[in-house]
Amino acid sequence: MTLSRLADLRALCERLPPPDEEAAAAAAARQVQLTKPEGSLGRLEEIALWLARWQGRALPRLDAVRIVVFAGNHGVTRRGVSAYPAEVTVQMVANFERGGAAINQLARTAGATLSVVPIALERPTADFTEAPAMSEAEFLEAVGLGMGSVPEGTDLLALGEMGIGNTTAATALAAALFGGEAEAWVGRGTGLDAAGLTRKRAAVEAALIRHRERLDDPLAAAAALDGRELAAILGAVLAARLRRVPVLLDGFVATAAAAPLAKLSQGALDHAEIAHLSAEPGHRRLAERLGKTPWLDLGMRLGEASGAAVAILLARAAAACHCGMATFAEAGVAGRV
Amino acid sequence: MTLSRLADLRALCERLPPPDEEAAAAAAARQVQLTKPEGSLGRLEEIALWLARWQGRALPRLDAVRIVVFAGNHGVTRRGVSAYPAEVTVQMVANFERGGAAINQLARTAGATLSVVPIALERPTADFTEAPAMSEAEFLEAVGLGMGSVPEGTDLLALGEMGIGNTTAATALAAALFGGEAEAWVGRGTGLDAAGLTRKRAAVEAALIRHRERLDDPLAAAAALDGRELAAILGAVLAARLRRVPVLLDGFVATAAAAPLAKLSQGALDHAEIAHLSAEPGHRRLAERLGKTPWLDLGMRLGEASGAAVAILLARAAAACHCGMATFAEAGVAGRV
Repeated sequence: MTLSRLADLRALCERLPPPDEEAAAAAAARQVQLTKPEGSLGRLEEIALWLARWQGRALPRLDAVRIVVFAGNHGVTRRGVSAYPAEVTVQMVANFERGGAAINQLARTAGATLSVVPIALERPTADFTEAPAMSEAEFLEAVGLGMGSVPEGTDLLALGEMGIGNTTAATALAAALFGGEAEAWVGRGTGLDAAGLTRKRAAVEAALIRHRERLDDPLAAAAALDGRELAAILGAVLAARLRRVPVLLDGFVATAAAAPLAKLSQGALDHAEIAHLSAEPGHRRLAERLGKTPWLDLGMRLGEASGAAVAILLARAAAACHCGMATFAEAGVAGRV
Repeated sequence: MTLSRLADLRALCERLPPPDEEAAAAAAARQVQLTKPEGSLGRLEEIALWLARWQGRALPRLDAVRIVVFAGNHGVTRRGVSAYPAEVTVQMVANFERGGAAINQLARTAGATLSVVPIALERPTADFTEAPAMSEAEFLEAVGLGMGSVPEGTDLLALGEMGIGNTTAATALAAALFGGEAEAWVGRGTGLDAAGLTRKRAAVEAALIRHRERLDDPLAAAAALDGRELAAILGAVLAARLRRVPVLLDGFVATAAAAPLAKLSQGALDHAEIAHLSAEPGHRRLAERLGKTPWLDLGMRLGEASGAAVAILLARAAAACHCGMATFAEAGVAGRV
């Protein structure tokens, strides 16, 4: 998809398709007939209804489950905001391609296909403490790339990222969108020490001051602060919505990347769930602002769609119960006293 | 296994095998070499080490994963302590056998074999508000049945139960072992209304008074308050320990069933983890008393090993990462700055 102006993107967000409430109602009617006390599968029941609502099927299916990991490089790494050197981004992409990373093992466990999309790794974004991370054209190019990554017929899409320095970008974007002191949003990322944390906070504060005049516009804020991989996630979330594909957002960075859509259009993230509550402290705050409860809380903070891949397992459990269980009538089991 | 006296059981608990710390140390040494920031897989890393420690393998395997669901009937149901009639126990066992229950779908999703062990369903335990639920001989028979359900070569054992009325038994047992008012332990089970909850609390209080002279002995307390399915879970947990098989306890009832072992011998449940924090309020209290943090909190309250089956998926994710990921050296990825 080619987008030539931010206004094109805004226009898309103004005509987002609603969920299929008929399919959701049929799924809910089935749930109360299944051989279990009502509500006793807890979150698994909600997940089944969410899949039904967005797939438009009373019996959701998970045949084509796709994980996409976008990777980008960040000029702000020169500010010493990560515990790892910037060249790790390209090295980890190679590791993904050889099958050696966590996400490769988790994708196999979850029965999902994995696509890795490195975006111009040789061209890091600008250091956003000094200039906008991307021009409008660069931002739209990355968004369009993300939009192209959601094939027709996808049953569930899990989105993640790799990019040394990108929790700094996500932190700046979250603070720009939802306000509050940088302090409240900043965390240790892949494992920063105290001095690194101070540098990271300073970089976020500098960015918020430098770009203050464009932060009222969620897309302009994203262009100024994002990495390319965050912009691509925004595009993929939007394309999924246009096709009514349910989306799992991995963790802090993926959630922040999608958040501008929620600011642009109420309900724009209704088709997206947060897979895992990151150990990164800004994530809890961000999830609350978006009104979402992450499915899992396992202390993970890796990114690369690892939390989303684990959440796919929950979706499989939910769909298996919803579609495969017998009803009280079929099983000849008595109801409540 | 035939046990003729409670003392035989106590003697077994006094010579429990320790974990394999050498395997755990080798697994921990591998973890820090894998291509991810240290600790960034959170709980999945702990799970991999736990599997390694108890399987005695630096690279744990999950080829033979077994779910066992024990079922029993409870005389205390005549007190109106459940939202469902007692005949549902046998009906649900038939549903398990035909493949229509939640656990059938979840076992398939988790790649686990499922065994269902109904125990003398035609002979409910005595109403424990009036007499001990079981004689010592009946209790030992059920424990022995559970001990026989752990085949050599099991890589991971998930334990659950079915028995209308059994959250009342579990509540009484938990209160007997760990003290405190019945009020603090009692919950709505499969969905009791307020009047039912009052009857359930009264039944628990009556049992604690009636059996007060035997409650200092964890095994005598279990015989007086358990159902047969709870006694069988205790036996299975013990047999698993003797074979160093790691165990996943499903929820509130399974955890309460195993708890007498922890009172008998410190560390007796080190090989067992709590799979899912039940929506039943006594479970949080019980988990705290046992010093364990459940892996999942999805609002489930079904029993029948459903939470343990979902937790198997986490174990698979953990083992896949631990065994399959490349090291920094293998992948040519740089370490910390």
